[in-house]
Amino acid sequence: MNIDEIVKEANKAKIKLMGLDTEIKNKALEAVAKNIESNKEKIYEANKKDLEQAQNLVESGKITKATFGRLKLDENKMRDMIQGIYDVIKLEDPVNKTIFTRELDEGLILKKITTPIGVLGIIFEARPDVISQISSLAIKSGNAVILKGGSEANNTNAAIFEIITEALKSTEGFPNGAVNLVYSHDDIKEMLSQDGKIDLIIPRGSNKLVKFIQENTKIPVLGHASGICHIFIDESADFDMAKKICIDAKIQYPTACNAVETILVHKDFKYYDKLKEALINADIKVIENPEKYDHEYSDTILSMKKIDGLNEAIEHINTYGSHHTDSIITNDDKNAETFMNNVDSAGVFKNASTRFSDGFRYGFGAEVGISTNKTHARGPVGLDGLCIYKYKLEGRGQIVDDYVKGRKTLKHKDII
Amino acid sequence: MNIDEIVKEANKAKIKLMGLDTEIKNKALEAVAKNIESNKEKIYEANKKDLEQAQNLVESGKITKATFGRLKLDENKMRDMIQGIYDVIKLEDPVNKTIFTRELDEGLILKKITTPIGVLGIIFEARPDVISQISSLAIKSGNAVILKGGSEANNTNAAIFEIITEALKSTEGFPNGAVNLVYSHDDIKEMLSQDGKIDLIIPRGSNKLVKFIQENTKIPVLGHASGICHIFIDESADFDMAKKICIDAKIQYPTACNAVETILVHKDFKYYDKLKEALINADIKVIENPEKYDHEYSDTILSMKKIDGLNEAIEHINTYGSHHTDSIITNDDKNAETFMNNVDSAGVFKNASTRFSDGFRYGFGAEVGISTNKTHARGPVGLDGLCIYKYKLEGRGQIVDDYVKGRKTLKHKDII
Repeated sequence: MNIDEIVKEANKAKIKLMGLDTEIKNKALEAVAKNIESNKEKIYEANKKDLEQAQNLVESGKITKATFGRLKLDENKMRDMIQGIYDVIKLEDPVNKTIFTRELDEGLILKKITTPIGVLGIIFEARPDVISQISSLAIKSGNAVILKGGSEANNTNAAIFEIITEALKSTEGFPNGAVNLVYSHDDIKEMLSQDGKIDLIIPRGSNKLVKFIQENTKIPVLGHASGICHIFIDESADFDMAKKICIDAKIQYPTACNAVETILVHKDFKYYDKLKEALINADIKVIENPEKYDHEYSDTILSMKKIDGLNEAIEHINTYGSHHTDSIITNDDKNAETFMNNVDSAGVFKNASTRFSDGFRYGFGAEVGISTNKTHARGPVGLDGLCIYKYKLEGRGQIVDDYVKGRKTLKHKDII
Repeated sequence: MNIDEIVKEANKAKIKLMGLDTEIKNKALEAVAKNIESNKEKIYEANKKDLEQAQNLVESGKITKATFGRLKLDENKMRDMIQGIYDVIKLEDPVNKTIFTRELDEGLILKKITTPIGVLGIIFEARPDVISQISSLAIKSGNAVILKGGSEANNTNAAIFEIITEALKSTEGFPNGAVNLVYSHDDIKEMLSQDGKIDLIIPRGSNKLVKFIQENTKIPVLGHASGICHIFIDESADFDMAKKICIDAKIQYPTACNAVETILVHKDFKYYDKLKEALINADIKVIENPEKYDHEYSDTILSMKKIDGLNEAIEHINTYGSHHTDSIITNDDKNAETFMNNVDSAGVFKNASTRFSDGFRYGFGAEVGISTNKTHARGPVGLDGLCIYKYKLEGRGQIVDDYVKGRKTLKHKDII
């Protein structure tokens, strides 16, 4: 099938998925988990083929060692992949939840009900474990999905996709065409042009990939191109707390999007030099006059800057940040409040590491991604972010003219 | 100021607006209402100038009589304009509401809090009363706004804008740069290219305008290009109810986006001819073999089609509709449920007129627009649609490494 046909099938499937029972969705997920479990060897074999080709690409410098690492499926990743599906089964079904029920008039009841979004387009790189993770989230939330993986992982992706498809086909009542995989690079361009037919694009990969997608589609994109997070050390900050949080925010996982890139220090904070020394002793490279502040190091490097105080911190962060996650270390509650209200980021923290910005740590049970968007979903996104809502109105023959002409009056009484 | 400077000022203002007290916002709104009240004559004078020029354009066929009508401000519109502002004052502030509070661990409290979106871009045609309406909604929701009105109304728009600006400047604590107006047609193009600096575009005008905007920007657009609504008359439908609802859905306001365009009738419904006759008697032109079904008549015309039954109705609506509002007339609860679950529209109704799809009728107190989007906001959008949320995390020095290494465990306890 070409991409137009796949999009058409996905749009047919989405209608059937919309009203699907939780039980069928969970059965489908269980079938997928079990089928992966019993076909592990097939997946490793396919992965081996990809790894052989990738080895050549590493040697010729076409892909990095890090990409090679992400591509490689080992026992741990396989176990996590399968466990991830069982975790999604346990999550509450986000669909068909009543947001409110309102009696507009006698016998005229309005309900706002959560529904799936429709068709998701997922574009990801190297990591083949993304397929099962995203497919599970799509299935649980009743969305059809079109996946495009990195070509380095084509064999592994195809093997996992086949195993998923087989499991879904064997599940009674589960519609065809819900999960789809496309292969060629041209398919990305095709996918990005399907506005109105693909409802949401979720990129999983490098900043470059995300930026490219954001700039080349009119479909809403859920994600973040970069994670330029800040810590502001206020005058009143406790030295030990500041040191501990700064080191955690960088060293705990230096390439994470919620790792800190710039530490802003109040000019009257007494321990600037001592803090700098502590960071260096923790194997962090500290840059005091960087060429640019709107930069994600993705490494054990950070910028450090002495500033006038709270207002400059807020302005710096709003100007150079990526509106992802920013933290203030302070003993001044009023300053903390001003910081948290005026920093325009998805996460605004007080006396906590930026690394807490994560769907699992927030207790969402699953993470679709972290969004720096200003509409739909912001910050770490759970299953809810794959849903929207519709309005159901049940009447007994009511017409608007009666209310416009004043023969009847709307009551608007909320029912709990 | 050119548009880049205006966008910059609006982005400065948005930070100050984010945490603004409800009291200051309401005082600003009251000042605006009073200033319009005391400067009515100035507005009528400016409107007179626009009407004189528009008269020539009507005569030369460059604008329609309908546009001329929308342009003209009379006492009713002026009164509604002022009353509209007082209505917005009475609405609950949608900002700074706590969606949930969760204890991640002892002394580590996560709050999900509503915030303004940021900077809104409003592009509207002819109707100068839109300025005060949208400005009020933006002020109440703490958003900065950049308005671009139709050039036919330039004089009226400028007069109203000046009066609003004067009132806002006189309000203590209200930031400059919150409400902005741009004039030239080139500004539309400029506005549409400001992704990342304008956060949401709301078009108010013709289907053509909305479609143009949707196709020419990467900024999220809230709205709908067309309103192709359906009524499906099921086999078991009551004739009187079907007749009453069909006539209301077309005649009550034929050009409204929630007016019906196509009536689908179950082949075994006994009164097809009688219904058709009733529609014709109500001065509706009935077309039985239209050239195309995906068409909004915006007139007292509708298509009528005999179909096999429920499944064909659902498929027809999902194929040719605009996912706005669709209604089933039936006495069969199961069919109603299937219809409402499988029709992929913002509003799915049972035994009620499509004309109920409206923010005021839903009880939202204000309407920003009606959205057929599948993300952020769908259906009639109230003040909530101008808000997003942020996550505030307050700790006592917690770091992630403690939880990753198992020295501590997250609790995820919701606090009510």
